[in-house]
Amino acid sequence: MKIWQKNIEVNKDIESFTVGKDRELDLEMAAFDVLGSLAHVQMLESIGLLTADELVLIQKELKNIYAEIEAGDFRIEDTVEDVHSQVEWMLTQRIGEAGKKIHSGRSRNDQVLVDLKLFFRDRIETTVHNTAVLFQQLIALSNTHKDKLLPGYTHLQIAMPSSFGLWFGAYAESLVDDMEVMLAAWKICNKNPLGSAAGYGSSFPLNRTLTTELLGFENLNYNVVYAQMGRGKTERILAQAMSSVAASLAKMAMDVCLFINQNFGFIRFPDELTTGSSIMPHKKNPDVFELIRSRCNKIQALPNEIAMMTTNLPSGYHRDLQLLKENLFPAMVSLNECLEMTTYMLQHIELKGDILKDPKYAYLFSVEVVNELALSGVPFREAYKIVGESIENGTFKPSEEVNHTHEGSIGNLCNDAIEKMMEQILDQFNFEKTRSAIQKLLA
Amino acid sequence: MKIWQKNIEVNKDIESFTVGKDRELDLEMAAFDVLGSLAHVQMLESIGLLTADELVLIQKELKNIYAEIEAGDFRIEDTVEDVHSQVEWMLTQRIGEAGKKIHSGRSRNDQVLVDLKLFFRDRIETTVHNTAVLFQQLIALSNTHKDKLLPGYTHLQIAMPSSFGLWFGAYAESLVDDMEVMLAAWKICNKNPLGSAAGYGSSFPLNRTLTTELLGFENLNYNVVYAQMGRGKTERILAQAMSSVAASLAKMAMDVCLFINQNFGFIRFPDELTTGSSIMPHKKNPDVFELIRSRCNKIQALPNEIAMMTTNLPSGYHRDLQLLKENLFPAMVSLNECLEMTTYMLQHIELKGDILKDPKYAYLFSVEVVNELALSGVPFREAYKIVGESIENGTFKPSEEVNHTHEGSIGNLCNDAIEKMMEQILDQFNFEKTRSAIQKLLA
Amino acid sequence: MKIWQKNIEVNKDIESFTVGKDRELDLEMAAFDVLGSLAHVQMLESIGLLTADELVLIQKELKNIYAEIEAGDFRIEDTVEDVHSQVEWMLTQRIGEAGKKIHSGRSRNDQVLVDLKLFFRDRIETTVHNTAVLFQQLIALSNTHKDKLLPGYTHLQIAMPSSFGLWFGAYAESLVDDMEVMLAAWKICNKNPLGSAAGYGSSFPLNRTLTTELLGFENLNYNVVYAQMGRGKTERILAQAMSSVAASLAKMAMDVCLFINQNFGFIRFPDELTTGSSIMPHKKNPDVFELIRSRCNKIQALPNEIAMMTTNLPSGYHRDLQLLKENLFPAMVSLNECLEMTTYMLQHIELKGDILKDPKYAYLFSVEVVNELALSGVPFREAYKIVGESIENGTFKPSEEVNHTHEGSIGNLCNDAIEKMMEQILDQFNFEKTRSAIQKLLA
Amino acid sequence: MKIWQKNIEVNKDIESFTVGKDRELDLEMAAFDVLGSLAHVQMLESIGLLTADELVLIQKELKNIYAEIEAGDFRIEDTVEDVHSQVEWMLTQRIGEAGKKIHSGRSRNDQVLVDLKLFFRDRIETTVHNTAVLFQQLIALSNTHKDKLLPGYTHLQIAMPSSFGLWFGAYAESLVDDMEVMLAAWKICNKNPLGSAAGYGSSFPLNRTLTTELLGFENLNYNVVYAQMGRGKTERILAQAMSSVAASLAKMAMDVCLFINQNFGFIRFPDELTTGSSIMPHKKNPDVFELIRSRCNKIQALPNEIAMMTTNLPSGYHRDLQLLKENLFPAMVSLNECLEMTTYMLQHIELKGDILKDPKYAYLFSVEVVNELALSGVPFREAYKIVGESIENGTFKPSEEVNHTHEGSIGNLCNDAIEKMMEQILDQFNFEKTRSAIQKLLA
Repeated sequence: MKIWQKNIEVNKDIESFTVGKDRELDLEMAAFDVLGSLAHVQMLESIGLLTADELVLIQKELKNIYAEIEAGDFRIEDTVEDVHSQVEWMLTQRIGEAGKKIHSGRSRNDQVLVDLKLFFRDRIETTVHNTAVLFQQLIALSNTHKDKLLPGYTHLQIAMPSSFGLWFGAYAESLVDDMEVMLAAWKICNKNPLGSAAGYGSSFPLNRTLTTELLGFENLNYNVVYAQMGRGKTERILAQAMSSVAASLAKMAMDVCLFINQNFGFIRFPDELTTGSSIMPHKKNPDVFELIRSRCNKIQALPNEIAMMTTNLPSGYHRDLQLLKENLFPAMVSLNECLEMTTYMLQHIELKGDILKDPKYAYLFSVEVVNELALSGVPFREAYKIVGESIENGTFKPSEEVNHTHEGSIGNLCNDAIEKMMEQILDQFNFEKTRSAIQKLLA
Repeated sequence: MKIWQKNIEVNKDIESFTVGKDRELDLEMAAFDVLGSLAHVQMLESIGLLTADELVLIQKELKNIYAEIEAGDFRIEDTVEDVHSQVEWMLTQRIGEAGKKIHSGRSRNDQVLVDLKLFFRDRIETTVHNTAVLFQQLIALSNTHKDKLLPGYTHLQIAMPSSFGLWFGAYAESLVDDMEVMLAAWKICNKNPLGSAAGYGSSFPLNRTLTTELLGFENLNYNVVYAQMGRGKTERILAQAMSSVAASLAKMAMDVCLFINQNFGFIRFPDELTTGSSIMPHKKNPDVFELIRSRCNKIQALPNEIAMMTTNLPSGYHRDLQLLKENLFPAMVSLNECLEMTTYMLQHIELKGDILKDPKYAYLFSVEVVNELALSGVPFREAYKIVGESIENGTFKPSEEVNHTHEGSIGNLCNDAIEKMMEQILDQFNFEKTRSAIQKLLA
Repeated sequence: MKIWQKNIEVNKDIESFTVGKDRELDLEMAAFDVLGSLAHVQMLESIGLLTADELVLIQKELKNIYAEIEAGDFRIEDTVEDVHSQVEWMLTQRIGEAGKKIHSGRSRNDQVLVDLKLFFRDRIETTVHNTAVLFQQLIALSNTHKDKLLPGYTHLQIAMPSSFGLWFGAYAESLVDDMEVMLAAWKICNKNPLGSAAGYGSSFPLNRTLTTELLGFENLNYNVVYAQMGRGKTERILAQAMSSVAASLAKMAMDVCLFINQNFGFIRFPDELTTGSSIMPHKKNPDVFELIRSRCNKIQALPNEIAMMTTNLPSGYHRDLQLLKENLFPAMVSLNECLEMTTYMLQHIELKGDILKDPKYAYLFSVEVVNELALSGVPFREAYKIVGESIENGTFKPSEEVNHTHEGSIGNLCNDAIEKMMEQILDQFNFEKTRSAIQKLLA
Repeated sequence: MKIWQKNIEVNKDIESFTVGKDRELDLEMAAFDVLGSLAHVQMLESIGLLTADELVLIQKELKNIYAEIEAGDFRIEDTVEDVHSQVEWMLTQRIGEAGKKIHSGRSRNDQVLVDLKLFFRDRIETTVHNTAVLFQQLIALSNTHKDKLLPGYTHLQIAMPSSFGLWFGAYAESLVDDMEVMLAAWKICNKNPLGSAAGYGSSFPLNRTLTTELLGFENLNYNVVYAQMGRGKTERILAQAMSSVAASLAKMAMDVCLFINQNFGFIRFPDELTTGSSIMPHKKNPDVFELIRSRCNKIQALPNEIAMMTTNLPSGYHRDLQLLKENLFPAMVSLNECLEMTTYMLQHIELKGDILKDPKYAYLFSVEVVNELALSGVPFREAYKIVGESIENGTFKPSEEVNHTHEGSIGNLCNDAIEKMMEQILDQFNFEKTRSAIQKLLA
């Protein structure tokens, strides 16, 4: 049963090919479809397209369906092609004629658009939350281990002294910038496309400002052609923001895989958090971080995939857009799992002490010596030559004291300033506003 | 002459391979390299690493070099490997020993980082300006042509009435969201990495807060390991923001190429803005828009290229990062040219009138008829069936009046609200602040 | 139960995170895992690591398991982490000690490698078959409709006469080149990695030449480090070959969506093969081709995703590689569905006649007129000017006869030559050889 | 002066925007443009469109121009838009009317197509040659150092014994498979598109078989619509083949950067082949390999860029295709430089001896011990447990002898078999045939 079905039976193979994975993927949008409908019907009543009685009837039943979804009791039947049809069909089965009226003034196109925006808002909130938790974990580790020195590498060559404080803190600060990108995605998601119908608006006197308020959107996608153009674009921008978080996690995972390698040997994890080999009994493999790296690299490829699937499509809806869900939805789950798993693993990280005592790290301190000479009045380029020659002829003797004091250095991590930057960004999401609108709608 | 050169001559082929296109590409960063040095030396003097006299001497000469760059008289010599070495070498040639001191407390790594950030800030400002101009052009066209109807397509099938007002306005609103992403890129660029040295800070008592103020940055990249990690990441996020603008332009270009095609025939451009064929004398080809589309699709592929070149690199500087300039710098120029060219072409667009009089567009009005029935009390699904059957049996008679009144619809474009959204975003860039800091530095 | 499990319980969350979708995806490889084992054990017996009796016992039971897989009765239990462990566990349960011996001389790494190669060979065969069927359909349509003219476009501008014969034939020939790329992927897949163990070979005196013959491989991946390096690389090259077929299908789908659009109106499909709209009763949407386009564009993004997930990984196995299955396996299914669906749709395509009678296509014939002048002795550039001027001043009168005779032109499609090229490529796959080896192994 | 110029002056900005970098990039195609014309005019004479005298005149002058190109004396003037116009213009200047006739029966579209194919053939030959040289270098190093052991890593964890023989040989064998993909690209390039005109053929009685022979092509792109469709597709497939070589080089470069790192310390290069740091006098950085890695990763992103710029374009020429040269041409140069530079660096690689004497590598031998137990009759899984427990309780005592004998293992590298595979692929390119055709054309 398809709501657009005319008198001609659509070929079964065609139907199966066109429905694709919608029944499975749409389940994730079910709750949001009901929310969109709740706002839509309240607006319809306000412009006289539903009676007050019909509204009450519909609202009551939509909330029932919402409860069934929350309870995990909702299914999309094999005879129904997507979540929108399923909800409408259930409604009509249960309350009769009034149910048929809820599609007035909207199309499946803007219905999907608003469902997706509500869904993305919800998932962004989860991702931001998980990022904030990881951020705090990193800041805590950075503070705790601020005095534990590490070799710092450039060109993967031993370069200058670094520290676990710097290392953990760097990834914390990386998440700050990632949240800046996520905030842009959030703002773009947080605009109401409902009322754009099939992408060209409606001859009904809709009140789109009302549904914007009811759903807690910050603003409208005003232009109805643009509202439709937002499909694919919103996904791409969201995927870009996700890819930014993913890139931070993947980079940290690469560091972990190096640092846990026996040639580096800077960190380890408890045995129960590593895995073994089917033929090498001594192996303790960092599979979790390899998988975080791989999952996150996959997410890094996602914006490109979305661009490839949408570029050169003229304006107006195309069925191509349906498939964007297939990799994006699982990627949102995967990113959150990676965030949680990284936090979990870091809670159990074990750090080696006294790493820089190993003589192979002596050269780390050559810049310090150059700088001391420079501070004593030798021009920098001269100091550089003097130390270079002492290394060349084997007479170099480092002082192993690290005395860095400037902002963001080993001795002055500025983690509190980094935390403040994070807070200022997180505040701008203002999740309370959207959450309270949704609660009011369901009340 | 390389500033790190020791006593061993580096192989010539190696040198040519490693220098690559730096001499050419670095020219674009030259002015910003001088600005970074101006801030750095002022700070060095404040912490006693330069005398007041040395500072005056250096500042004067750096401003001379800046003037030479602005005048187009600056070259990177073949014996010098990059812009940083060239500036330092000129300085030392002209003012002697004092010139050698300016590299105290910094590394080429943070010098490149700050040059890039200053350069990106400058180019973002240009892009935002060009976008704002195109935005105004689109809004003006939308307002002017708000009553000219167009067929609206879904699935590239004739669907519902649209208008030139909607079409132009949609791309205007698209640019609003694109600027939201650009703003995130701006915020990430607008943080000071100077003082992070090779990525592990310095033993000099640098005052990074001072250079942050002098260069008009909004904030610091505090953690020095993160400051270095920003290389590649900043480029990727900036490229993503650019790709968002590019996607809007490419989509519009695709529409234009369709609409100018003789089967559609909705728009045309004056002959002097189109090109011909070497064998078909009647051709008037929309090459400009095909090239905008192609250039913009290329820009859409750029974030992926940057990700491919940086993913799975552990933390710390790698020479790999040097190559990110090669496609990013030309892409920034290209995007601005596309913005300017789109504006220019739109200034000369000619629209066909009375498009919907053609009988093939009659079905556009079927939803209107369904809605009228629905408004008169027929449940929507019933109305849909009635009209569907009248189309099927050839009795469908459309009313060709379009009476859309809701927000963002043909009859109520809300262009003023869209303009207001744009203004609110543009205000947040606050270019005045960065510009006035730079002017002060050069005064 | 994990075969590498030591005395420490691996954390449940870790286990679930690391197993991922393996249980689901590995099912597709189950039959091939058994085939690999059948070859491996026969080789083990030949070098004295199994007795003849043990071999008989194991072979019998492996064939039983193979039959269960074919019958759809095989499951990977929740306590087992992958298909390899499941098969080994079943074997040990059923035949005892001998079952434990089959892992001698191999690692899960080369076991996965050989499973994947056997699996890819099988799927390539299916893809090549489906491509050949579509190719024949296209050639047949090209031959049948060789006299039906179409406008040919360049820059999407009306350019010169084309024909349905040319249009169908072009996509047929496109598939020929696609099969050239697929053949390269096949050759790379058709080499035996078994015996490379964890990527560094084995101290057992394995006979890899024997397993190569038994499994019908054309050659070995000799170097064991390279055999392991083939993971990810094989997938990427296969995905590139798939992307080539996909690009042909996507392009054809784009043409179809244009040609079915009412402004072009060159083709149509029966109503039961199109879909409708929830609010526009007159719509007959080409969803099938939009989805083919979208699925194929997604496949076009796949090689990049694989590259992103594998680049900058040093040599040697990494767990990252496990995830390559997640998008590649479904993509292989999807590509085959797209091939079948394209064939199916083309079997029902309906072509409009007399398209070029429409006066808007008159200019199509301008080149013909230029050429006639040129043949009569006027230099080409002069002829071009004369016709250009007649178009400009409205005196142009086309002859509407198309008399193209050269190879590959409207009047001389050379479809037989194209068919011959296809045959020559298809012959080189030599699927008979691999198929008969597998049959012998199962006999 | 544009050959399609009508009486209307094309806007200067438009011209500059549309010409883009053609004048610069087209220089690389100049010689091939002349070759294409030499074949075309010989064919035109054969069908009576040129007199024998005209042919002689034109051939003589085209060969003069070819000689000027070879001598580096050819320029594309600022008043001319591309290489095709420049050659035609020079010809007409020098020999008058006859020069104007060479464009009969062709369009710039098929002219570019054939130029590109000839150009790609030439560059593929260079790439194959450079790959073969690197291959021989790797095989030689593998043979020379076959007894030097290395730790083998899985999950970047110490796993099993490997060797420099295996490591060098693995990359040699990798290049074999890369050449398989390159061969597919070669075959697709080696088909003649000339005669397809603007993509819809010509009313002239062209003899395309003749130009195919004259230019040494293996076959025709028969269908003229497909010949045009080959633009973009050929580039994408060639870029994929290049990306395969690039992926091998990038992976080796990553290994080198790890192995040269002081924590591994397996290899080094002479000082004159490494670079230093502006602030760390002890640094000897592997910049060359970092840049090879980065350049090759950029090449890995290229097929995706080409796909992004061409996907969803309907059939027929679009100006978009012009821009594909911009990254592809430099990438071909870059890949060849990377091949040459890798060979050069490997000629100077220095290997550390006795690496496995370091006690941290003792566990490498655990599988050997497990296997010995297995060979002595203990079931593999039992042996694994026994050794695992001895490692766990610290009693593990490895035998450090490596006795691997099977095909492709440390003790039996099979480099001769790998060389034979390479030869068989290289033979199939049959460059002699194309080269001798070109020589004949120029004789």
